[in-house]
Parts: sequence; structure tokens; C-alpha cells
Amino acid sequence: MIGGGQGAFIGGVHRMAARLDGLYDLVAGALSSTPEKSIASGRELGLADDRCYPTWQAMLEGELARPEGERIQAVSIVTPNHAHFEPALAFVDAGFAVILDKPMVHTTEQAEALARKVRDRDAIFAVTYNYSGYPLVRQAREMVRSGEIGEVRKVVVEYNQGWLATKLEESGQKQADWRTDPSRSGVGGCIGDIGSHCEQLVASITGLEIDKICADLTTFVPGRELDDDANLLLRFKGGARGLLFCSQICVGGENDLRIRVWGTKGGLAWHQEEPNRLLVHRLDQPDQVYRRGNGYLGEAAAAGTRLPSGHPEAFIEAFANVYKAVAEAIYAGAGADSPKRFGFPGVEDGARGVQFIHRTVESSRSEQKWTAL
Amino acid sequence: MIGGGQGAFIGGVHRMAARLDGLYDLVAGALSSTPEKSIASGRELGLADDRCYPTWQAMLEGELARPEGERIQAVSIVTPNHAHFEPALAFVDAGFAVILDKPMVHTTEQAEALARKVRDRDAIFAVTYNYSGYPLVRQAREMVRSGEIGEVRKVVVEYNQGWLATKLEESGQKQADWRTDPSRSGVGGCIGDIGSHCEQLVASITGLEIDKICADLTTFVPGRELDDDANLLLRFKGGARGLLFCSQICVGGENDLRIRVWGTKGGLAWHQEEPNRLLVHRLDQPDQVYRRGNGYLGEAAAAGTRLPSGHPEAFIEAFANVYKAVAEAIYAGAGADSPKRFGFPGVEDGARGVQFIHRTVESSRSEQKWTAL
Amino acid sequence: MIGGGQGAFIGGVHRMAARLDGLYDLVAGALSSTPEKSIASGRELGLADDRCYPTWQAMLEGELARPEGERIQAVSIVTPNHAHFEPALAFVDAGFAVILDKPMVHTTEQAEALARKVRDRDAIFAVTYNYSGYPLVRQAREMVRSGEIGEVRKVVVEYNQGWLATKLEESGQKQADWRTDPSRSGVGGCIGDIGSHCEQLVASITGLEIDKICADLTTFVPGRELDDDANLLLRFKGGARGLLFCSQICVGGENDLRIRVWGTKGGLAWHQEEPNRLLVHRLDQPDQVYRRGNGYLGEAAAAGTRLPSGHPEAFIEAFANVYKAVAEAIYAGAGADSPKRFGFPGVEDGARGVQFIHRTVESSRSEQKWTAL
Amino acid sequence: MIGGGQGAFIGGVHRMAARLDGLYDLVAGALSSTPEKSIASGRELGLADDRCYPTWQAMLEGELARPEGERIQAVSIVTPNHAHFEPALAFVDAGFAVILDKPMVHTTEQAEALARKVRDRDAIFAVTYNYSGYPLVRQAREMVRSGEIGEVRKVVVEYNQGWLATKLEESGQKQADWRTDPSRSGVGGCIGDIGSHCEQLVASITGLEIDKICADLTTFVPGRELDDDANLLLRFKGGARGLLFCSQICVGGENDLRIRVWGTKGGLAWHQEEPNRLLVHRLDQPDQVYRRGNGYLGEAAAAGTRLPSGHPEAFIEAFANVYKAVAEAIYAGAGADSPKRFGFPGVEDGARGVQFIHRTVESSRSEQKWTAL
Repeated sequence: MIGGGQGAFIGGVHRMAARLDGLYDLVAGALSSTPEKSIASGRELGLADDRCYPTWQAMLEGELARPEGERIQAVSIVTPNHAHFEPALAFVDAGFAVILDKPMVHTTEQAEALARKVRDRDAIFAVTYNYSGYPLVRQAREMVRSGEIGEVRKVVVEYNQGWLATKLEESGQKQADWRTDPSRSGVGGCIGDIGSHCEQLVASITGLEIDKICADLTTFVPGRELDDDANLLLRFKGGARGLLFCSQICVGGENDLRIRVWGTKGGLAWHQEEPNRLLVHRLDQPDQVYRRGNGYLGEAAAAGTRLPSGHPEAFIEAFANVYKAVAEAIYAGAGADSPKRFGFPGVEDGARGVQFIHRTVESSRSEQKWTAL
Repeated sequence: MIGGGQGAFIGGVHRMAARLDGLYDLVAGALSSTPEKSIASGRELGLADDRCYPTWQAMLEGELARPEGERIQAVSIVTPNHAHFEPALAFVDAGFAVILDKPMVHTTEQAEALARKVRDRDAIFAVTYNYSGYPLVRQAREMVRSGEIGEVRKVVVEYNQGWLATKLEESGQKQADWRTDPSRSGVGGCIGDIGSHCEQLVASITGLEIDKICADLTTFVPGRELDDDANLLLRFKGGARGLLFCSQICVGGENDLRIRVWGTKGGLAWHQEEPNRLLVHRLDQPDQVYRRGNGYLGEAAAAGTRLPSGHPEAFIEAFANVYKAVAEAIYAGAGADSPKRFGFPGVEDGARGVQFIHRTVESSRSEQKWTAL
Repeated sequence: MIGGGQGAFIGGVHRMAARLDGLYDLVAGALSSTPEKSIASGRELGLADDRCYPTWQAMLEGELARPEGERIQAVSIVTPNHAHFEPALAFVDAGFAVILDKPMVHTTEQAEALARKVRDRDAIFAVTYNYSGYPLVRQAREMVRSGEIGEVRKVVVEYNQGWLATKLEESGQKQADWRTDPSRSGVGGCIGDIGSHCEQLVASITGLEIDKICADLTTFVPGRELDDDANLLLRFKGGARGLLFCSQICVGGENDLRIRVWGTKGGLAWHQEEPNRLLVHRLDQPDQVYRRGNGYLGEAAAAGTRLPSGHPEAFIEAFANVYKAVAEAIYAGAGADSPKRFGFPGVEDGARGVQFIHRTVESSRSEQKWTAL
Repeated sequence: MIGGGQGAFIGGVHRMAARLDGLYDLVAGALSSTPEKSIASGRELGLADDRCYPTWQAMLEGELARPEGERIQAVSIVTPNHAHFEPALAFVDAGFAVILDKPMVHTTEQAEALARKVRDRDAIFAVTYNYSGYPLVRQAREMVRSGEIGEVRKVVVEYNQGWLATKLEESGQKQADWRTDPSRSGVGGCIGDIGSHCEQLVASITGLEIDKICADLTTFVPGRELDDDANLLLRFKGGARGLLFCSQICVGGENDLRIRVWGTKGGLAWHQEEPNRLLVHRLDQPDQVYRRGNGYLGEAAAAGTRLPSGHPEAFIEAFANVYKAVAEAIYAGAGADSPKRFGFPGVEDGARGVQFIHRTVESSRSEQKWTAL
């Protein structure tokens, strides 16, 4: 693991997700950008002394120096966004499977370079768009793609948070600190941090391609440099329309990610905070409530389910579904086509996400209505 | 009453709303554009023969011909949109109180003419934006305006219906028929029919003025002439941002009007289909659920409440609150300032709504991002 | 109308319910047990001077003295419980249709006498168990009785209020005052006031007969004479089991009446505070949410519906459905069989309710487990 | 681990719960009552060959034969109920920490013997009443016990499942098979399997002791030997009243465990299927919705929380909280007092649960109303 040391948030989530199914052992790490902290964090997690590396470069070198059967097989990179590209590229190049946090990288050039490298090395590469791991998101995907709601007409995706409604970054809170700093977070604030999840969720469920966007990004909290609120109109290829909005200033919003999709024959609604339910609309029929763990669900949902219905699964379990799928790819000796084969978000999703962030920022600055994606 | 005869929908609602508090007696009507049907409908409702008029012109003449104490005091105009302007203008001019359905009229010129007439004649004039009559909408208004959620930053208002997801107008369904016909409905389809409610709800609760809009109107059902889906970005004077979206092709949507408002210190969420609850967010505190009929609510909510808490009130009761407020204005001998004094939507709201519809259609056709309102 | 004068609660509800559909005109009243207040209340409501009666006896006499076509056709009796029996018996005897509030009377002897009189005079007689007027309660009834959920196995009905959690009767609040006074309320406190609604709702929806009960009544608030909390086990004829519980000390409970019914093939759940939804369970299938106003609902629900789906109807509209059904019976010239023919609760329901209250009080005092009903 | 081999359900849950926080390694097992299956299951889970034991007796012997530092420290016993007592007693006696599934044992004699052994050996002993591990259950406990809702008056706890609404045990489904078999399940069916969770949840949250009960157990599915439905009235010491009901024939019920507690000053409601919310009622104030992960929650909730608010945690995480607390006790070198010190359910809870099941069965057969607990 690279990143995720003391004081980090998402690193711990990755570790729990990796542990849940007993498919991963954490054996090596460069857990912080500060060498001393990196080593201390590794010891705290019980890593062997010689695999607590001060830097990711040292880790790469050290692991490569080990006999083949005793190296790591995969690396999770959970650093702030600015520290994604270099280690990802290097570890892919060295032949390791890579699990990388989103948004993938800072620039579209980096994204392309990384995508090229993944293809060249036929590498297993995952981006942890974790929400696509929820069983009922997979069910939604299966239903939309099999035509159960007809041709998609409208999509509304939203992600409302409130934790940055005040200037939290001034308090020294680490998460707020780097997320509001363009040098570490990239060109997008809220749109990069959570808007990218919205974009990926739409793509994953509907398979639709965004044709053009019209964005209005705002920074509400005085003195902040990046957007903390984003509102977009979407036009999809084929004629569907949509709205994407996200915010980090919506007081009371916790992790309020919701998606609604309507087609010619029905509709679906899913809410991340109540992830075990999927509301299904059908023309002239009563609404249905699909619930995780039931026999009427499809294969994709079933494969991501560990507990019987009514025994709720949640965030960590969904995250673990991404890890589980990557493990299956590793065991199968798969390569760059593993995202499609094993059902997890890959480098193409990551690259599309980076482009989306950049185009959104561009659109927001434009006086023209539509910006092509 | 003008309009609302056999086969109509909203006329019956107006009559129930008027009857509920015992403040109105229906005594005269020109209930249909077809003279025979107009008279037959009047008889069915138990009107005296000599007050079942064939046309609104006849009604105006007939009522004016009666001794002053035996005339109607107010007229409800519940015809399709294209038949609003002329009778409204004439009855205002003749000195009657007028209650008119929304959207008020077809053109901004008509809107201005009507507004001028109302002012000139110092008339009592209401537009039945009925959702503003809900007690918890009034509570929301009071809370936002008194600063309980701080300075407003973001508004999301939406109105999702699905009844026009198929080409219902071909079935002869009367409501679908006129609403999809530009000659009777005006330039807006969905945006006029329900988007106008959204606009008014935002204005009523927040008091914010829309500065400019960016609209994307769509007609999804082939062969339909007017929009059946509308998505808008909003910019308010003072810096707040918003989204307004409405649709009549969202399968499963019934009358799904929702509004969310976030400010610097808190937030509010209200849903028309569960109108007795108002969700309140406050910085760093647990969410609160305000429920109709409780002592902790303000005066405006209390004044629009007939039943104790837990005994739900709903659509008709909210509609009746508009009628009740107009009756109070009539009893008080008030004039053109009665909307402000008695808390109901007036000709200014109606005119703003007509302008909003026109600007939205204009924006939707424009390649420019923003259209000023 | 008898009762329902100044300061009363339920009288106003009856009046709104009666007015809603334009099927009733209030023309005469003895609105209070205090003659002066009775007359004053009548004037306030716009009754003619000669039909503002000081007492119900005077009203009976006065109306009978009028020519047949100019008399009242029906009387609503909305007094506290102790003042139900005498006027109800007298007006039935005199040939008027009677609409009486619940619980019907104080004693089983009174109940039997009244039932006998209704049969003897072939009278139209309704008890306002208003919750059975909700469209989705009617739908539930139709579904259970037609076997859609199979043979009923279990029923849970509950009614949680909190308004008497403190000694409100000491504050002079009129509703609390008479409801906690055995001389006016009868032998049951909470069990009479709201438990009786539960019993009727179960009977109405399931058609099951209670075989025996096991009750535990409690008075939590010190100094109160009647129960303010009731918990019962139910055994139905045929083998179904159930629980009935109600309370007026459940802080936060408003008018929280809920019923759940499970059978061999499915289940239903309805909640009075969200009355436009009915949750339907079916073996091995997703839950369904039936919503008022849709085409997939049965005739009984449709007949009690005034507005399209999504335009919520609530307490007053359900109450009005009882009034409407009685009006239909009157127009049809029906008699004592009208509850069955027109679908409203009649004297048999009222009598069964009175017996239920008495047996519950008896069971609560008994050391034996089961008390036969 | 003892039990939990191929085809088992709860064993896998225990393993995930143990793994989640990285505090346990599974190193030895006797995973099935069939020796061959036991060994095969162990291999499947990656245990060393010499620690895949054919029987729990062999495991006990084998582990004791290992040098002290290389033995297991704790054992999880996740067999069907009839196979709880003997291994639990033996492993406690041998000085291992024991984590045992509920209900603890079959008879009150066994329960007492086990409790005695735990005290005598000063052992760490946990019963996995996993629902008490939910952060908001802990919050509820803290709030009730600190007097935030005043003196408790009423408790309603319910657990509605539907999976045994048909004779599933005939299909060969393993879970249904043993749970409906008295020789493996004990004297209680539904009341033992899930009623015991209800009892423990009430005890954990309120600290109240049940004084007496009145039970009505039913077997609805023909040919089944144990109860599949249970309804109880409860009287607590000190005067509070309650209802406890649970069922496995409630079609559509998944794992629908709910608890409501009302006191003199407020009330609480929690639902296992939406475990990240706790509804709080307070006299004359708006309801509040407490949500997991927020700063306004108390220490006990915070200690059981891994993710920020809005990132839902669920069943496995709550289960893991029990495991985590036991690990803390082990690391601290604690003994028989560890349940109180580290906040997990211990042998006293288990023993009380066994007694509760037996008294309920007894009460159900009695003609007397109340059976003392």
C-alpha cells in the first residue's frame, strides 16, 4: 500500500475492504510522504521491518529485489490525488497489479499515458469507484442494460455533502486541507472529489456516453480556491438528457449520493445511504422495492452479496467487492481486459473521469452553453 | 366559476377547496366553452337555472344585471390557459374578486395588462399556486426569511411526473389533450404546467429573485409539440445558485414536487407527497423533523392548519388555504395589496411566472449559456 | 348537528367532511350542552335563528314540528361519549338518519338497545370509524377478502399517541378533560378512545372475528383514573393471532395508527400518517407500493378517491367518505342494511366496539389468561 | 473456530467480523460435525494441515499440545445450538477465550454450569448478540441510561421474518432444517432463534429487568414442531410495560428487528434494517434523527464507528464490534468481568436468554396470565 498512513481516512477503508474476504494480506507499504511517518505507520500495522519502506520508490525497488514468489502481487495507491500518477505508472510498468483511488490523475495527458502503459503491459488496473460495487448498483446496471426500463430518457445524479460548508481546512483537518488545495487535488474541488463518482455511476449503470455538458461551478466559502458546488446539464449521445449536481456546502448532507434513471418503460432510483434498496418504477404498475439478498435479483448483484436479505451490507462491503473482483482477476492471470471480464472500474473509467473533470471546469468558465466531452 | 364543467379536473378541486371552510357558495357558472354543456354542468351542480350561463360574457352581463347584494362576489376561472386572459380582465374590470388558475396568461403583454388592470381597479386577484398554501411551505418560508438557515446558497426544486410518458393525448384524455396543444397551453408544455409551480415555490419560500437561467427543454414523446421535460440551471441575485427540473415523462412519478434549500447555517427539505413533514438541517446538529400541527411551528403554518398533528392534511386543504385567504381579503374589503396582507399568490406572482416560462423557452433555443430573467 | 360547538374538536371535522362533497347543508343544531352556548355556536355557524336549538330535545321537537320537506334529513351526534346514547336513540326513533361518533355508547345494554331500535325502525345509522374511509384501507380490505395474501395468520395493529404523556387534563384542555373522566368517557380511557379504532380497523380489513383476548391496561400518569396505555394479545376464530396496542403516553406519537396483516401468501402494511401508500408483500417477490389514485387499484378504493395520484388526500377526505356513503344511502332511500350496501360502519360495528372495550377492561383485571369476546 | 464449515451461514459472518479490523487470524478449526468435511473446510480456508481438526475434542487436545505462544488465544463456536454447551465448557475450562453464538445453550442447568465455569476460571466469554454492537444501539443505551428520555414507561420490540412462511425445512435448506428441529434448536423455535435477540436488545438498551411475561407461541406451518410465531406481553420491575413479538411467517419480513422505547420525557426508535439512524422524540419538540458518525453522538457509539457519517456501516461492522471488544479484553489480559469493562454481551446475558426462552415456552402453555421470570 502506498499512502494511507497515520491520519489518513481512505487508506483504512481500503485495508478493511481488502481484509474482509480474506483474499489479501498487507505485507509491504510506503504509507506516508514523510519517510519517518511512513515507516512508523508500517510498524503500527504489523508489517515486517524490511518492508516498511520510506518512499514508494524504495518500495518498488525493494519488492523487485525479492524473489518472485515473495513479492507483493498488487499495490493499492491511496495517496492524495497529486501523488497518484508517478507510482501508478511505475508499478504498472514493473508488472504489478495496481488499485488506485479516484480521481485517477491530474491531467488528461497523464491519464492517456497511464492508459497506454496499462495496455502495453497488459496490466490489471483498477480505479476504486467503490459505489459501483454495491449489489443494487450492479442490479440497476443489469436492468438498464437488458432493457427492463426501455430506452433511457433522463438521468438525475446528485451527491450532496455538507462537511465543507464552513472553512474546515483552516482547522487543520487533513481531509479538508488537501481536498481544497489545487496543487494536491487538481483543477476540480467538489467536482473532482465527488462529481467524478457521479459521472462514473451514470456511465456504469446506463452505459450512456455524455455528448456535451453545461456546467456552473461555484466556490461558496470565502477564500477557498476550488469549487465547492457544481451543477451540470448533460446531453447524452442518442438523445437522453440529464442533470448532475454535487456540493460540499449542503448543510446536513452526509454522503448523500443518489441516482435516478427513467426510460420509456420504467425507472430506477437508488440512494447510497440506504444501499440495500432499489426502487423500481414500471408503466401503470405499482412501484417495486428490490432488496439486496433476494432470489429475484440477477447474477451480478448475487455475486456481490455476502449476507442474506435483511442483514444489511454497506460501504465497506461494496468497496470490498472491487477488491474481490481484482483478486479474481489476479488469480485468473488476467490482463488489461480484466475490468470488463471481472466487473470492476478500470483505467478507461479513470481516464474518462479525468477528462470529465477538466471539461467541466472549462465549461464552467465558458459563455457558450455546451462544451463537448 | 368559469370552466370546470363535465370532464374537467381542476374545477372540482377548486369547488372542494372553496367549500371546505364554508366560506363560499357556488351560485353562478359558465362552466364550459360549449354553451349547452355549460348549462348542463351548472344544473348538475345545483345552480339556479338563471345563473347557469352559456358563456362567461353572458355571466358577466347577467351578474352585473342583478342587484348589488345578490351578485357573485368573486369568480374562479379554471379554464385551460388560453381562456384565462379575457374573462380575468373583464371580471377585474367589472369589480369582482378574481381567482385564476396558473399559469396566469399566455403572453407577457397579457400579464402586464392584467397586472395594470388589477392595480387600476385596486382588485383582489389571486393565482392558485396552491402549493404555497401548505402549512409547512409557509413554515419553510418563515424560517428562511427569518434567517434560521443563514444566507441561502443553493436551491434544488424538482417536479417529476410520468403521466405523459406515452402519447396519452391520442387517447382522448382531456387533460393531456389541451396541455400538449400550444394553442391552448401556450409556449410551454411541462415547463408551463408544472415548472411554473417550481418557480413560484422557490420565490415564495426564499424571496430570492432569479437573475439568469440556462434551460434545456426536450420533447421526448414523438409527435408531441411542446416540451415534456425541462432542466434548468439558475443563478439568483446575490449569488445563490440553483437547479430547477421538471418532467412529465418520468415513469412512476406522480406529483413528485420537492424543494431543498441550503443556507450558511442550515437547510430545509419538503416533499409535496408527504406534505406534513419538513426536514430541517442545522450545522453540526441532528436533523429535525418538523410536523404539521405542533406548537413549535410559527404563525403562518398554524393559520393554515385545521387538524391536530398526526391527522394528516393534504392537497385540498392546502388549496383551501388560498381560498380562505382570499375570503379574508374580501371580508376585509381589501384591494390590490391583499396578496401581501393575507398571504396568497397574486397578479405579480402570476406575471413573474409568465415571464419565467417565456424566458425558459428562449434560453432553451439559445446557444448562449445565460439568459437574463 | 348535536355537539360540536365552541371549543370542540371533532365537530369541526364532521362539518368539513360533510361540506367537502357538497352533499350536506348544515341547517339546524344543538351544538352544546349549555343552552346559551348552543345558540351562540349555531349563530356563529350561520344557522337560522329558529334552528339554533338550546338542547337536542328541543331540536328533535322543533324539527318534527316543521313540514316534512323542510326538516333535517340526518343528524350528526358529536358530543362526548356519555351524551351519545339518548339523542341517538331518540332521533333514530323519530325516523332521522343518524351519524354518531365512536365509541358508540357507554354500555353493552345501551348498544343492544340502539341496535334493536335501528333494526326496528329500519334506520340509516353510521358510526364514524373514519379510518375505514381511507381509499387504501378499502383496498386492503378488498385484497385480504379476495384472498390475495392467502389465509390470514397474523395481525398487528397499533395506535401510538403521546399527547397525554403529561397530565394535560389539569391544564383545562377540553379534549383531555373529558377523555380522562370516566363519567363522560366510559370505562375505557385510551382503549376506548383509540383502541376501539384499532379493533374496527382489523374487523373491517380482515373480516376476522376476535375469539378471545388477553389485555394489560395501565395508567401511567399519576392521578389519572382511566387507562392511558393498553397492550393486548388477540386470538381470532379460525386460528389467526394478533397484537393490538395503543397508548397516549408515547412521547412523539401523534396519530400513529398502523396495521400489518400477514397471510399464507403475502402481507400488507398501512400507516395512517402516510395514508396514500399501501405496502404489499408477496412470497418470493419484491415488495410493492400501492399508491392512491392509480388504475391498478380496485373499485372500493377508486370510489373513495377525489384526486389523481400524487395529489395526496388525507384525514378529512377519508372522513368525508363516510359522510358520502351515508348520503348515498339517504338518496337511495335505504334502511338498516345500508352499512353493507354502501360500505360504511354501522350500528353492529358500534356495538361490537362497545363490547370490545368492556371485555378488555375485564380481561385486564383478570388473572386468567384469556377472556372470551 | 468450531462449526462454520461448508454450507453454514453464520460461520462466514463470524470470520468476516473477525477479519475486518485485522485483530484476529484464523489458524485452527474443527469446522463441521463430520470429520472429513471438517478437514476439507479447514483446507478450503487455508488452515495449516495440522490445525484442520476432525472434531472439537481433537482441536482442544491439539492446541493444548502446542507450545503456549503458538496456540490459539480464542475460539469461536458457531455450531447449531445443541452443540454449544460441551465445547464451550471445555474450552473455557482449558483457559481459552470463548466467543459463542446465541442462544447460549439448551437448558438453564447448562447455562448455570457454564456461568459458574466462566466465573471460576475468570474467563473471557462472549455471546454474539451482535445487534448490541451497532453504534446507534449503543447510543440508545447511553441515552436511556443517562435519563435523556426520563423514566422508561413502555418498550415495544419486534422481529419479523418471513423465510419460514412455507415449509422450507423440507427443501433441504440447512438453516431451516436445524432451526425447526427441537433436538438441535432446543425448546424454542422462533422465540429461541430471534426472540432471544429481542430480549437481549431490551435488556442492553434499557437495563430493565423483566418481572413477568404472558406468552402466546404458535406454530403456523403444518407439521412443524417448534413455534414459528411468538407474541408476548411484558411487565418490567419498576412498572414499565412492554410487548415483544417475533415471527418467521411474516411474508416479506427479512430481518426486520425494531425497538421503540418511551419514557416520561422522550422516546427512541431504531430499526436494524436502517441501522445508521436513530429517531429521537422529545416532549413538545420536533423529532430528531441521530445519524451514525456525527460529533453529537456519545463515546460508546463513536468507539464502534469506523467510517464517517453517510458512509453506511451495517451488519458485519456491528458484528465486528463484538469481536473487537473481545480482542481488547484479550489484549488487556482481562477476565470474567470483561463484558462490563469492554461492553460486549457475556455469559450472564446468555444465561438470562436461556431462561427467557424456557419461561416463554412455559407461559405459552399456561392458562395463567403471568409467568414470573
